[in-house]
Amino acid sequence: MTIQEIRADELDPAQFIQTRVSAIREAVGDGLAINALSGGVDSSVVTMLGHRALGDRLQTVFVENGLMRQGEPQQIVDRFRELGVPVAIHDARDRFFAALRGLTDPEAKREAITQTFYRDVFADLVRSSGARFLLQGTILTDVDETVAGIKRQHNVLAQLGIDPQAAFGYRVLEPLIELRKDGVRKVGAALGLPEAVYQRMPFPGPALAARVIGEVTSERVAAVRLATAVLEEELAASQPFQVMAILHADRVTGMRDGRRDYGHQIEVRCWDSVDARAATPTRLDYDTLDRLAARLVTEVPGVVSVTYNITPKPPSTMEAI
Amino acid sequence: MTIQEIRADELDPAQFIQTRVSAIREAVGDGLAINALSGGVDSSVVTMLGHRALGDRLQTVFVENGLMRQGEPQQIVDRFRELGVPVAIHDARDRFFAALRGLTDPEAKREAITQTFYRDVFADLVRSSGARFLLQGTILTDVDETVAGIKRQHNVLAQLGIDPQAAFGYRVLEPLIELRKDGVRKVGAALGLPEAVYQRMPFPGPALAARVIGEVTSERVAAVRLATAVLEEELAASQPFQVMAILHADRVTGMRDGRRDYGHQIEVRCWDSVDARAATPTRLDYDTLDRLAARLVTEVPGVVSVTYNITPKPPSTMEAI
Repeated sequence: MTIQEIRADELDPAQFIQTRVSAIREAVGDGLAINALSGGVDSSVVTMLGHRALGDRLQTVFVENGLMRQGEPQQIVDRFRELGVPVAIHDARDRFFAALRGLTDPEAKREAITQTFYRDVFADLVRSSGARFLLQGTILTDVDETVAGIKRQHNVLAQLGIDPQAAFGYRVLEPLIELRKDGVRKVGAALGLPEAVYQRMPFPGPALAARVIGEVTSERVAAVRLATAVLEEELAASQPFQVMAILHADRVTGMRDGRRDYGHQIEVRCWDSVDARAATPTRLDYDTLDRLAARLVTEVPGVVSVTYNITPKPPSTMEAI
Repeated sequence: MTIQEIRADELDPAQFIQTRVSAIREAVGDGLAINALSGGVDSSVVTMLGHRALGDRLQTVFVENGLMRQGEPQQIVDRFRELGVPVAIHDARDRFFAALRGLTDPEAKREAITQTFYRDVFADLVRSSGARFLLQGTILTDVDETVAGIKRQHNVLAQLGIDPQAAFGYRVLEPLIELRKDGVRKVGAALGLPEAVYQRMPFPGPALAARVIGEVTSERVAAVRLATAVLEEELAASQPFQVMAILHADRVTGMRDGRRDYGHQIEVRCWDSVDARAATPTRLDYDTLDRLAARLVTEVPGVVSVTYNITPKPPSTMEAI
């Protein structure tokens, strides 16, 4: 199957929305569909498109994996409620942290998060929903990266442990598959999504777990969550391309109340970039860096040291692991 | 025993040198003495003082532990040769790296270095030298810190496994014990030591091992050595109070030739300080930071990421471990 790319500059969003809404209606008929909303651009656009096509016959679930930013699950649900789209929060934090226990290898951690999402949590939700149609926000870049071996297979049914050949007739709908990110943003704008959603800062699939070096526990994620909130608050005005806090596993010596304190280090990365393919560290002024360090060592328990990454991509990558 | 402090502003260096030279001569008589030169201010001043008192009857040894900076052992020996003081280099690299193998706990590493130096290497040298007098560069701050429990005991003979009560009559001479660092620098200047010696940047006892987080191997020390040489070269003109490169054990993702490369991270610390009790990160301009990062990822094998520490002391300490 060859997918015909629709370039953003050729895209007519209104027409695209109309044809995709019709296609979804035709496919689903009077059946039920389900989709998982992560809050990212692609899944947000699919959610809007699916609701325009199916209304209440699309069930949208936000899986709370315990790895999201401060207040993020509720914020996403509230935002969609304001748009008239109900989203159910499914609390699966314990299952994710149980799956991550003791893992330190980055690939093993990523795999545990993916498996927990698809095989455990989402598979249960799909089966109990009675839906036979899954809406997915796959875009052309995902397909390219799967072919190139950079990303995992986007064969969702196989990941759910559901045989698509079986009599049940499960079917995956991927209405954005001919678009790239810039096209998806145009469609998002035309669907009436707020700019904060369709222009959202890139955020990795494994969420804050990608910013915990070593074992991912709820305490360590909480430290990164708090640090991230500080960074986003302090740098809100300068609107960086991307800013992140990374909790290291290496411990370093510090001093608290005149005593040695073998504590934690947070690494801050703040990127200038056009398209994420190349990036340079933002030249934050030292008054800002001082303020970030002062707040992080005060507000994040156990942190005695803060660094700022000064390496461009390449040879660095934007995320640490 | 109470030690009477001699404050730097009350110190008459010429008179101090004269009385200490006499005292050393009187104590040693026509016997032999030995001392270990590390290249630091205190041991350099003791070496000069001891040679002025004893000439060839003081044997000065530089123990090459494999943990020093680039070219440092030879540089130190050359510098003292120019001053008319012969220094023997004793190569003990294998013994130090063997003792450090598999150790990751900072205290265990420090202990291994101390034990290897005193019990293994220096004890052998003392016994085979025939000397009964050890000259030590202990200063008043060391005594204070021993009493306060911050530093280890400076009972050198016990550390050497030599019973000072035994018939051999081993004796330790500590001619600088009434001084603090600023007084020692004044004496160093008066003894004709070059400014580069008596104003030397502070450098920790465990040397570059203090800047390797995790296991200390000769390869990992070599990476820190190379990084340190780059930093000292690039920042020579700005003469920071102290600058250091730290190799982390945590690995981070990078990209080399378009491929993922799970590599190493170097942390740079550069301090502004008056007396090391408090310190703030030097506000290096971003052109300098860019140049440091570019050289470190190019010249130090396996390094894909460089950070700059932005935390003041306290709550940070100057060294990482």
